[in-house]
Amino acid sequence: MDNTKMYKSLGIDLDAHDTLMGALPELFKECFLNKEQDLKGLSYFYSVVADIHGARVKELIEHKNKGPVIGSFCIYVPEEIILAACGQLVGLCAGADFWVPYGEQIVPKNLCPLIKAGIGAKYSRTCPYFQVVDLLIGENTCDGKKKAWEIFSDMVEMYVMDMPNKKSELGLKLWQEEVKNLCNFLEKKFSKSISFDSLLDAIQKVNAKRSALNRLYETRKNSPTPISGIDALLVTQIGFYDDIERYTKMVNALAQECEEKVLSNFKNNGRKRILVTGSPMVVPNWKIHHVIETSGADVVVEENCTGTRYFKDNVSIENASSKGDLLKNISDRYINNINCACFSPNRGREEDILKLCKDYKCDGIVYVSLSFCTTYMVEAERIRKVAKENSIPMMTVESDYSFSDLGQLRTRIEAFIENL
Amino acid sequence: MDNTKMYKSLGIDLDAHDTLMGALPELFKECFLNKEQDLKGLSYFYSVVADIHGARVKELIEHKNKGPVIGSFCIYVPEEIILAACGQLVGLCAGADFWVPYGEQIVPKNLCPLIKAGIGAKYSRTCPYFQVVDLLIGENTCDGKKKAWEIFSDMVEMYVMDMPNKKSELGLKLWQEEVKNLCNFLEKKFSKSISFDSLLDAIQKVNAKRSALNRLYETRKNSPTPISGIDALLVTQIGFYDDIERYTKMVNALAQECEEKVLSNFKNNGRKRILVTGSPMVVPNWKIHHVIETSGADVVVEENCTGTRYFKDNVSIENASSKGDLLKNISDRYINNINCACFSPNRGREEDILKLCKDYKCDGIVYVSLSFCTTYMVEAERIRKVAKENSIPMMTVESDYSFSDLGQLRTRIEAFIENL
Ligand code: SF4
Ligand code: SF4
Ligand code: SF4
Ligand code: SF4
Repeated sequence: MDNTKMYKSLGIDLDAHDTLMGALPELFKECFLNKEQDLKGLSYFYSVVADIHGARVKELIEHKNKGPVIGSFCIYVPEEIILAACGQLVGLCAGADFWVPYGEQIVPKNLCPLIKAGIGAKYSRTCPYFQVVDLLIGENTCDGKKKAWEIFSDMVEMYVMDMPNKKSELGLKLWQEEVKNLCNFLEKKFSKSISFDSLLDAIQKVNAKRSALNRLYETRKNSPTPISGIDALLVTQIGFYDDIERYTKMVNALAQECEEKVLSNFKNNGRKRILVTGSPMVVPNWKIHHVIETSGADVVVEENCTGTRYFKDNVSIENASSKGDLLKNISDRYINNINCACFSPNRGREEDILKLCKDYKCDGIVYVSLSFCTTYMVEAERIRKVAKENSIPMMTVESDYSFSDLGQLRTRIEAFIENL
Repeated sequence: MDNTKMYKSLGIDLDAHDTLMGALPELFKECFLNKEQDLKGLSYFYSVVADIHGARVKELIEHKNKGPVIGSFCIYVPEEIILAACGQLVGLCAGADFWVPYGEQIVPKNLCPLIKAGIGAKYSRTCPYFQVVDLLIGENTCDGKKKAWEIFSDMVEMYVMDMPNKKSELGLKLWQEEVKNLCNFLEKKFSKSISFDSLLDAIQKVNAKRSALNRLYETRKNSPTPISGIDALLVTQIGFYDDIERYTKMVNALAQECEEKVLSNFKNNGRKRILVTGSPMVVPNWKIHHVIETSGADVVVEENCTGTRYFKDNVSIENASSKGDLLKNISDRYINNINCACFSPNRGREEDILKLCKDYKCDGIVYVSLSFCTTYMVEAERIRKVAKENSIPMMTVESDYSFSDLGQLRTRIEAFIENL
């Protein structure tokens, strides 16, 4: 079926959707096509974006004959369990400014753009991914999302996982139970039984995806990095909704090409190396990377949820002899290894950032909070201290999805890079 | 000892403190003394504010010979346990605009004024209550506070209670454990053993305070109310730091005076009756009440943490035969009966508001969020729906501690009242 038919079947507002899609090609050209790049393996990822509301949506619609399509907004929602229930997980964190005014019709303006865009995407019926999902799984991480679920639940079926705020023994226990509850809920809801084998298989698939991304990021430790930061970011972003097996294959192919490029010993470009950290950056939010990399520096690693936090650790399958063991390993991996600012304290993130700065030989840190993202904004103070103690220059940026601050951002970021 | 000596011993910044205290008398006069009021029982509460950094601070310093002085920022911190450990609990939620710029030196501007003022009060060393406490007990309710504890912990000893975000079975369990943990922690930390008897005694004291406030509020159901809203608010606010037994006595005396006033059958003033709901209003944040009540309406009840949420339910002592039983009853009372927007969902609050509107015969709702108080701002949407379904007019106000929006507030509130 052609896209228009498909959109109609999904209840998309076609006119508004045309407006939304009208702006994307220009933005994509400016951020990706106008720069030099020589990696053949990127063409797959570029083509995914070029057809962002096309082929993949079609696949998901077809998938609905076999199992549910489930949306989420946070890397805490364990993809393994959804896959094991024959589901497909789609990351819905919305990155387009287009949706913000729609969201602001329902929620206050001073919420982070990710939440406003998410609500706006659903409310405006212009995102086929929001339309195709059978269920949204929320999580109680930040205040804005926690309360947004109540709004979403008027528009779509929601299931919410609770989260502790402290990684205490009790907190871990609560999370373990929530992971088990999710498993039980999905089994019942979609009449699928999740077995040891299906869960093991799902874990291996997600581990393979994470390993591929790790392999790709590993090549960025080289100086110069074989892949630009904005391209690497795009690759990670696509991992949130692409078919997992095809995606893993493509990331591995790209990683191999990067490894070969490094071996071919291309000469150092002398550009400063930047670690970006903070709130997530979801498609098409490429603003900060674009500004940094057109200001003479390279982003070599992202300590955020569209970066290392997404893939840095695998779920252990050693010594697991029951489904319960596997669920326990899943919950451990998520709670212990993802250091989101929604936890207090969140010292693990300090260590992560310092280690990444060392491993990726970073000259400076650009700390990016989405506007009104309280947890990351407040945590900046602590990271600033730690960076200072370790003599790593750091700048903080607070920005939303609009382009109105581009000029000011460029001025500040250029000055920061010049002083490195 | 005179106050200056006392302030010096507490490490107060005397000059800055003078500036802070310079503004209070004028504000107090405008909000309280300039209006008509005939309740003798209020003079105690007025005198407490007039000497806000004096006699009570002295008492607390003296108390330190017997036990700890402990600060908190939320009505979720169970006063019973602190009293049972021979402690005195002081509510520290700071309500003065003076402290905001100090706080903004450390935390982002787009945090709620309560948090910024709290941090600023400590950082500026101008609040004797912050200086006198031996320990702060935080709780993980909203994002801003959750992350503020990490900042506070650099300045003062902190203990943080974790909170669930959902009132699920698991959530209740987590909270029960946190209540037990607090008890154990205080016993160890201050070498006090908390017995069944001391805990029972403490529960009875706090229950008596809550009952007194309930008794006072009960009189406000009459038309006209025997006590103005701003006076009732002041009384509740003082409950957060006053000596509990003296306070309870004074509230009961005032309640009795109000009961007699009602019986004396003074004539109806025809003023519209307003329910105020939303974020807490702490001393000296009297802004909204002042504007409403000088615009021709009466605030007859506050559904907030400086209102009914603070005192509406008592801890059960029936069938409790062990310390464990009492602790369980304490945790039940707090988690089940306080309907803070930090929970999701928070349907209990909808019911509370509707019931209060009915019981207090309210003509309209003024929904007040402190600026950047995400949970209350988002929840306004749901309360608006419920109010509409029940044909209760509602207006929303978002405001901080500054007076710059007074004119605009007055215009909006007058218009709202006129249309009731
Ligand atoms: S930043 Fe935190 S809340 Fe947001 S996606 Fe990452 S883990 Fe989830
Ligand atoms: S970016 Fe920050 S405020 Fe926005 S959803 Fe994520 S954690 Fe919440
Ligand atoms: S509004 Fe919520 S977080 Fe604030 S004091 Fe009340 S219960 Fe605590
Ligand atoms: S007023 Fe709102 S934002 Fe401020 S501390 Fe209370 S719950 Fe948090």
